[in-house]
Amino acid sequence: MKKKIIVQKFGGSSVANVDRIKAVAKRIVERKTARNHIVVVVSALGDTTDELEKLAFQITKTPPEREMDMLMSTGEQISCSLLAMAIKKLGKAAISFTGKQVGIKTDKSHTKARIETINGKCIRKAFDENKIVIVAGYQGVTDDNDITTLGRGGSDLTAVALAQALNADVCEIYTDVKGIYTTDPRIVKEAKKIKTITFDEMLEMASLGAQIMQARSIEVAKRFNIPIHVRSSFSKEEGTMIVKQSQKLEEISIQGVTSSKSDAKITICAVPNQTGIAAKIFSEISKADVNVDIIVQNVSHTKHTDISFTVPKSDFTKAMKAANIIAKRIKAGNVTQDKDIARVSIVGSGMRSHHGIAAKMFEALAKNKVNIDMISTSEISISCIINSKQADKAVKALHTAFQLGK
Amino acid sequence: MKKKIIVQKFGGSSVANVDRIKAVAKRIVERKTARNHIVVVVSALGDTTDELEKLAFQITKTPPEREMDMLMSTGEQISCSLLAMAIKKLGKAAISFTGKQVGIKTDKSHTKARIETINGKCIRKAFDENKIVIVAGYQGVTDDNDITTLGRGGSDLTAVALAQALNADVCEIYTDVKGIYTTDPRIVKEAKKIKTITFDEMLEMASLGAQIMQARSIEVAKRFNIPIHVRSSFSKEEGTMIVKQSQKLEEISIQGVTSSKSDAKITICAVPNQTGIAAKIFSEISKADVNVDIIVQNVSHTKHTDISFTVPKSDFTKAMKAANIIAKRIKAGNVTQDKDIARVSIVGSGMRSHHGIAAKMFEALAKNKVNIDMISTSEISISCIINSKQADKAVKALHTAFQLGK
Repeated sequence: MKKKIIVQKFGGSSVANVDRIKAVAKRIVERKTARNHIVVVVSALGDTTDELEKLAFQITKTPPEREMDMLMSTGEQISCSLLAMAIKKLGKAAISFTGKQVGIKTDKSHTKARIETINGKCIRKAFDENKIVIVAGYQGVTDDNDITTLGRGGSDLTAVALAQALNADVCEIYTDVKGIYTTDPRIVKEAKKIKTITFDEMLEMASLGAQIMQARSIEVAKRFNIPIHVRSSFSKEEGTMIVKQSQKLEEISIQGVTSSKSDAKITICAVPNQTGIAAKIFSEISKADVNVDIIVQNVSHTKHTDISFTVPKSDFTKAMKAANIIAKRIKAGNVTQDKDIARVSIVGSGMRSHHGIAAKMFEALAKNKVNIDMISTSEISISCIINSKQADKAVKALHTAFQLGK
Repeated sequence: MKKKIIVQKFGGSSVANVDRIKAVAKRIVERKTARNHIVVVVSALGDTTDELEKLAFQITKTPPEREMDMLMSTGEQISCSLLAMAIKKLGKAAISFTGKQVGIKTDKSHTKARIETINGKCIRKAFDENKIVIVAGYQGVTDDNDITTLGRGGSDLTAVALAQALNADVCEIYTDVKGIYTTDPRIVKEAKKIKTITFDEMLEMASLGAQIMQARSIEVAKRFNIPIHVRSSFSKEEGTMIVKQSQKLEEISIQGVTSSKSDAKITICAVPNQTGIAAKIFSEISKADVNVDIIVQNVSHTKHTDISFTVPKSDFTKAMKAANIIAKRIKAGNVTQDKDIARVSIVGSGMRSHHGIAAKMFEALAKNKVNIDMISTSEISISCIINSKQADKAVKALHTAFQLGK
């Protein structure tokens, strides 16, 4: 009989100290049976990543990226060897591997490398010996034998990519929350755990601020249709399944409300109303290596219009510089900025075909005196840019209006 | 013109913190010219090794050795990437490599692996690009791609082995002392730095307690005739050169006085005086995996004799057990023990051919009322086992008697 293959990923908070490592080991051993193979991907212990980064920045403000990867990849190597020890201590065979040993080949973009192929030969050999396999997350190796790291959320990506390469039955993401919630439980105490969510909905939730899994990993899971189970390291309760299609795809289902304060707004005023002007602006912005999120340009019947867009706060300085340059070149007016913004969003499949949803959202915000600054809609979400001070109030209002606590 | 190749090794105390790493980087950069290539081998930052070991032992009292190597090797990976950053910050090109990347192939004896071959291709490539090369010490890789570590003093071994593989002109060992001294300056303040010492003398010094370099590394340097320069990380002063032959090999030169309290003495009393009895005893002891150091059996004209030997304190329990078993089997008497012993030694080439040396040593000890318990001589050393309380007094007396402070 073919054995079931389970990929499990434990984040940094799940292995923050020796006691937690032991608890994780116990949990893995309890799961291991004669009928399955288990591959565990593990992040660095608690604060290790921050501590290593601090060391590097004490040496130089601009650490070379190749050396940075050499440094940062040690965090996961430490945690995976410790976890293998803890499992062996409980009497089960285990073996740890670095990204390089597993043959996770990446491109050469140090600190944000992309996985190209996974060899995985040593994992299959370990399966034959009935060993639990522990893999250092977040890292790979180039064709030149240089160590790379995968950037933020890299361990999730390692887990999903391994699940794909090994044709795993499920990829379990263990975290410090019990699953995906209808909204942030710290803001709305009635927030409910979602049982099943689609990849697309989760992608919206992830990019809109629910920081459980990075969008990159969900995109890979979606592309290869790898079911993800997001669940708690500290409880045996079932978490949230992320799947291709929800059973209830035909009804409108608002899955959740998210909010994020990580963006800032830039407005180029009095832009000449000409064909191709937006293209000119945003090609300049993108040359500055800035990720633009929401763009709003009102239809204008005059000779000038205002164009607003949001960018991550980390890109703000670059973006402002680029905006000022292009504004001058196209003979537009002032460039204004607003850092005190928040985006609140509702996410759910099928909302496009049901016009009442947007109206209900705007109504709920209006009733709570929340002023809407910009609006953006997608196939499965509606987002409003509002003043950041009103973000929590808005989330509560929307959670209640769409009866998500029920 | 062929460029000079210099291998430098910096120990853990030389890179204990960010400031020291920066100081080491400065020193390396000052040394780098258009006419040389520099390879730097670096140990783990200060306490890192101890901290990692502590983590492992908090998980299990018997960490599997393969996982232990996976864990411990991260210490040097951290320091070599940080050092490469610090050098780049000073404007010189640098690149760091793990033992694996350099192609340091070892056998499979995890935690105490032996180097088999060094490929070094990536170092020669880095030389072509005029980069300073930083190599993580203490580690290698097996044919199966498993990470190994080389055991105590492993970084010295990496440096010497690289010097051999690259046919380097010199291997510089940077440490927290200024070189090899005639004796421990903490005991005798008149102790003088030795300018030149032979490999053989240094081997005696090392195994007899001068803890600058492990015997393994010196043996390799001797075999391949690699000149070693032991010097301080914190001063530009010349240190001690370790070479094949001293210029003054024809005269008797007492190089130094060493002492060590790491051994214990075991005596099997009333051993039947038969041919082959010593072989019986010590084959039993060696089966218990104990390193026996000095053995003394007096010529006896009676039917019984006492046999005494010293063993490292760490092997003491095993050794006593084995001694008791064999004593019973060969119908010997009691087994007695003495842990309060010290070994004081004088080391120098050519002492065998000059009988006055031993007499002078015994006289100096007698004059200071130091009782000699056992005596052992080699080609280039004479050692006496004495009471540990008298060790410092004995070292001082010998240092004065042989005029080493002059």
